[in-house]
Amino acid sequence: MLKLYHTPLSPFCRKIRMLLKEKDLAFELVNENPWERRREFFALNPAGEVPVLVDGRRTIAHSTAICEYLEEAYPELGFLGESIEERAEIRRIIGWFDTKFNFEVTENILFEKVYKRLWSYGEPSSEALRAGKRNIAYHLDYIAYLTQDSQWLAGNRLSLADMTAAAHLSTLDYLGDVNWDAHPRAKEWYALIKSRPSFRNILMDRVMGLKPPAHYENPDF
Amino acid sequence: MLKLYHTPLSPFCRKIRMLLKEKDLAFELVNENPWERRREFFALNPAGEVPVLVDGRRTIAHSTAICEYLEEAYPELGFLGESIEERAEIRRIIGWFDTKFNFEVTENILFEKVYKRLWSYGEPSSEALRAGKRNIAYHLDYIAYLTQDSQWLAGNRLSLADMTAAAHLSTLDYLGDVNWDAHPRAKEWYALIKSRPSFRNILMDRVMGLKPPAHYENPDF
Repeated sequence: MLKLYHTPLSPFCRKIRMLLKEKDLAFELVNENPWERRREFFALNPAGEVPVLVDGRRTIAHSTAICEYLEEAYPELGFLGESIEERAEIRRIIGWFDTKFNFEVTENILFEKVYKRLWSYGEPSSEALRAGKRNIAYHLDYIAYLTQDSQWLAGNRLSLADMTAAAHLSTLDYLGDVNWDAHPRAKEWYALIKSRPSFRNILMDRVMGLKPPAHYENPDF
Repeated sequence: MLKLYHTPLSPFCRKIRMLLKEKDLAFELVNENPWERRREFFALNPAGEVPVLVDGRRTIAHSTAICEYLEEAYPELGFLGESIEERAEIRRIIGWFDTKFNFEVTENILFEKVYKRLWSYGEPSSEALRAGKRNIAYHLDYIAYLTQDSQWLAGNRLSLADMTAAAHLSTLDYLGDVNWDAHPRAKEWYALIKSRPSFRNILMDRVMGLKPPAHYENPDF
């Protein structure tokens, strides 16, 4: 059976969890706190970071490598598109959220509020938090733009682009930092994600003594 | 003909330039300063970021999407590995440099020294610069570790893993921030990269009124 080392609030782990479920693959979830710097975990991944996937004798580290691996090894249910154009567009949107959104929003909010303390990197910067909250709005507008003529971000099929965007947004939503009501189209898209069985388990996690807002796991929010 | 929108000191653009040359593909290089926020460029890539590749009617944005696209569209000379295990390992190392090295080193040095000014983000932070320079050492040790039994980072063939690592290191080397002499094995590996014809053009660029150190483009440094 597949084994995924993860930490609950990491968007990069949440994406893989959702992908595994959507691909209908059984897997064991192993909680790993990378800030504890466990020696055995460094042996699996010298970067000391989650997610790490173990598939029999194979160990795959880094979320992009894991996604591509799962698509190659288990192609029956694919989420990276069928044509070369679709794949380029899906990977572009994945890049948007894992790089741009991550830099402009996730690092400014999740890193500052949660991980800085765990990694002993000092106090949250109020300047970073303000920037993160300011930046999130135009990303929600971009989701609205991408879904103006389609149900999902890269057309009419759920893809890894949606999973990536939802994984980032869900961690910020856990912290109460997404103003969905100001972005009705993005909210509609996210309601579809929340109603996927593959996303339910992720939303059930309660972690690190933090309580999410009341709407957090409700698909009718 | 392929057309690549780039900016000379971006490691994400340098990687694509090297890949295009190694794949023996002709391309036109278009200089784009993303901090000028050109409207026509946003029409090509709403993220407003380089690299962007135009291949006939197809536009591909984000370096990961471009690499995967080039490997799919032009598979004759491949740099992502042959077996599924090789691909997972090459993508893991790409992830290491594009995410971990980028966060721990490139953003702390290149972003602080060069891009912060261009994007009008304020003064460089001396704390970030110190962290970047401190962090670079263990990444060079990791290159030495990966190449202890092989010529290249992921075995005995040049791959996108090497191009990614070299792209990041070369921009820092341009700024004079790599202490090669303290890392002889990493230096040996980088000398191999510097002697590739695909890397020569990149090292010939002179940009933004900045002068690189004397050893910068010399393969015998």
